[in-house]
Amino acid sequence: MEKVRTFIENNKTRFMEELFELIRIPSISSISEHKPDMIKMANHYKESLLKAGADRAEVMPTKGNPVVYAEKIIDPTLPTVLVYAHYDVMPVDPIELWKSPPFEPEIREGHIFARGADDDKGQGFMHVKAFETLVKTNNLKVNVKFMIEGEEEIGSVSLGAFCDKHKEMLKADIILVSDTGMIAKDIPSITVGLRGLAYWQVEVTGPNRDLHSGLFGGGVANPINVLSKMIASMTDKNNRITMPGFYDDVLAATPEEREKLNKAPFNLDNYKKAIDVEDVSGETGYTTIERTGIRPSFDVCGIWGGYTGEGAKTVLPSKAYAKISSRLVPNQDHEKIARMFEDYFVSIAPNSVKVKVDSLHGGQAYVCPIDLPAYRAAEKAYTKIYGKVPVPTRSGGSIPIISTFEEKLGLKSILMGFGLESDAIHSPNENFPVENFYNGIETITWFYHYFAQDSK
Amino acid sequence: MEKVRTFIENNKTRFMEELFELIRIPSISSISEHKPDMIKMANHYKESLLKAGADRAEVMPTKGNPVVYAEKIIDPTLPTVLVYAHYDVMPVDPIELWKSPPFEPEIREGHIFARGADDDKGQGFMHVKAFETLVKTNNLKVNVKFMIEGEEEIGSVSLGAFCDKHKEMLKADIILVSDTGMIAKDIPSITVGLRGLAYWQVEVTGPNRDLHSGLFGGGVANPINVLSKMIASMTDKNNRITMPGFYDDVLAATPEEREKLNKAPFNLDNYKKAIDVEDVSGETGYTTIERTGIRPSFDVCGIWGGYTGEGAKTVLPSKAYAKISSRLVPNQDHEKIARMFEDYFVSIAPNSVKVKVDSLHGGQAYVCPIDLPAYRAAEKAYTKIYGKVPVPTRSGGSIPIISTFEEKLGLKSILMGFGLESDAIHSPNENFPVENFYNGIETITWFYHYFAQDSK
Repeated sequence: MEKVRTFIENNKTRFMEELFELIRIPSISSISEHKPDMIKMANHYKESLLKAGADRAEVMPTKGNPVVYAEKIIDPTLPTVLVYAHYDVMPVDPIELWKSPPFEPEIREGHIFARGADDDKGQGFMHVKAFETLVKTNNLKVNVKFMIEGEEEIGSVSLGAFCDKHKEMLKADIILVSDTGMIAKDIPSITVGLRGLAYWQVEVTGPNRDLHSGLFGGGVANPINVLSKMIASMTDKNNRITMPGFYDDVLAATPEEREKLNKAPFNLDNYKKAIDVEDVSGETGYTTIERTGIRPSFDVCGIWGGYTGEGAKTVLPSKAYAKISSRLVPNQDHEKIARMFEDYFVSIAPNSVKVKVDSLHGGQAYVCPIDLPAYRAAEKAYTKIYGKVPVPTRSGGSIPIISTFEEKLGLKSILMGFGLESDAIHSPNENFPVENFYNGIETITWFYHYFAQDSK
Repeated sequence: MEKVRTFIENNKTRFMEELFELIRIPSISSISEHKPDMIKMANHYKESLLKAGADRAEVMPTKGNPVVYAEKIIDPTLPTVLVYAHYDVMPVDPIELWKSPPFEPEIREGHIFARGADDDKGQGFMHVKAFETLVKTNNLKVNVKFMIEGEEEIGSVSLGAFCDKHKEMLKADIILVSDTGMIAKDIPSITVGLRGLAYWQVEVTGPNRDLHSGLFGGGVANPINVLSKMIASMTDKNNRITMPGFYDDVLAATPEEREKLNKAPFNLDNYKKAIDVEDVSGETGYTTIERTGIRPSFDVCGIWGGYTGEGAKTVLPSKAYAKISSRLVPNQDHEKIARMFEDYFVSIAPNSVKVKVDSLHGGQAYVCPIDLPAYRAAEKAYTKIYGKVPVPTRSGGSIPIISTFEEKLGLKSILMGFGLESDAIHSPNENFPVENFYNGIETITWFYHYFAQDSK
């Protein structure tokens, strides 16, 4: 393993150039006009895996965007690591807030700025380069498989069926993923819990056409007013979700768990300052760490209706729309919650409007036990590079596929995240520290080392 | 007056072609890129007034769009009618719902389809053609002045100052306006009451940038959730506006007035069917006619924030916006209400967000006594053409300038409207029945006749 650092050091520039090539393909999965970019992206990833040392690499079709699969089997009797990543990215709106074009990566003050710099091209590509490093330095002692999908940002809609179809091919001992964050640049952490997600689009229709708000205002239900009331009624004054049955399956954290969780480094003043709010807000009786880690949420991700242009148009609109999401916690079933909301939201609508609810995507929450051999290997790897034992944390984010892997393939996942909160993923000016990219590659090589060693 | 009908009959095609020329200029006052169209439109109107027989016509500057002024003074000792109209129109969004391009007028099934076909190019131009008819047939027995503005749809922001500046020039006995509707094609009516208006844009800011709804959701105030709650709280379960003091100045209608008002022909089933709603909605204890005529309203005219594109983007947005309007009734002061809301809406915001409120425009409500000589002249004119005495009605719409005229020029206005509810003003597929256009011209000529006769 002594050659690992030198190899990474000698190839730094090339690694970064190769990452930039990936980033330059605008693989936005939620916008259909980017379909050709998804194919281009998948092929590019396949080629890079072959060059890195895979024996086999393929772009495999699904009903949606293809999955890139690759493997290097050095000995079928040895343990196998299955690396998961995604090559699709989020949309870039509001585009005017980007300081440099989202698909023209640029390094400023030690950070790579681009859509996907962290989520998940930067983090995903670290695995390709860690794999290459191990192969080229003769340090690969386990089998490796890669499964890189193109639909993570739209709910991994085809990956469940892909896992069902290719169970044998995907056989492994553990799944390794870098699509999460660490507490701070100098405080490594491993995410052991993820929230689930349910996501809906709702449409409220009042009159069959836009009406003059003077002639009809006060006499006909305004769909924006009604939608606002319906959304408002979904949470009470303690910011608890009012939908009957919503909390029924929530496994409440024990006082001990909550205490441990709240010991993670967290400074409320810095948190508020970083996002420029005078006060935080959330469910009464819980800390911010708890609200975003172990409690469900109810967020309107988008809303629109009526006249939104310049000036004052007096109109009583025909329609109002919202995109609504709820983060779920372990033991809440996202499909049950999705159906529950579909029925409930329609049931609370007044007769004066028509309401349509569509579930757009969802995923289960996840918990990883910290006594798994692979978890311990990851712990040692971080300790080796960062000089500190990583903190096990719960993330409020969702990677729905992690629970699908558990269900379909019977495998746990180790979430070795190298992202920072300041990376602004899903937002304008997404970025990833250059240092985290290289440290990530090195940490991952050591994960393989310890995992192979402990599995002997 | 016997030549009037023949003259109109003989010039029908030309009148319509001239109206189409006006309509083809896309004079949308609320969109700044249409500025050159406003100038073009004003000049076109000026020319048409000169051709119709005005002694003088001018495009007169204001701080905003110019006012077209014209006059024909046949004898300074005779009474003077001041015609008011507006040459600006509403935006055309949603453009995809138009069956023919909004600025390419087209006659289908007896209706002129175009933006401005009714409001207010169709109705305004009837006055030019009625004037021409009287001049060319030697029937003009009073002085006529025209004041045609280009900012009615954005609150007539410059017209108050214009009236102040040109008080002497605008001296008259009555103002005549066609910018309202009649009950039905065969039921003429004259609007004797108009609601006032206050209109605001609000901006709610949560975090300083869009956040990942997984990492932050549940712990940081979502500006869309908050805005929805704030809007929802503005009306109670009886659809009464909750802002303290809002109803303080409302002059409640007497039981007799309410009884009279509810005698106007109105069929609730047809009303609901026409706009395809299962139920109407409004202030408890009032009929639909009352809710839209003599009671104030609170309508969100537009709302936007977060991700509104295709698919599911999980984001906790930084900002949410709404355009909010309130129709006011006689004795409510729009400036007082505007300030009241500015203060109140900010006061109900939680600490976790910042709120900005801008008043965009407003106008006072108006009432016209039905014993005015000019009202009686209008009554006779409708009776002459339609064979029925017109019904005095209250309209829920606002023409803020009508109360400004009263305040600045000391003049009442007669609202001879020829529009129908089905004209879809402010909406896609705005239209105006061809028959109403020609009947309107003829009715207006008779107004001048009776007004001159009664003033002798």
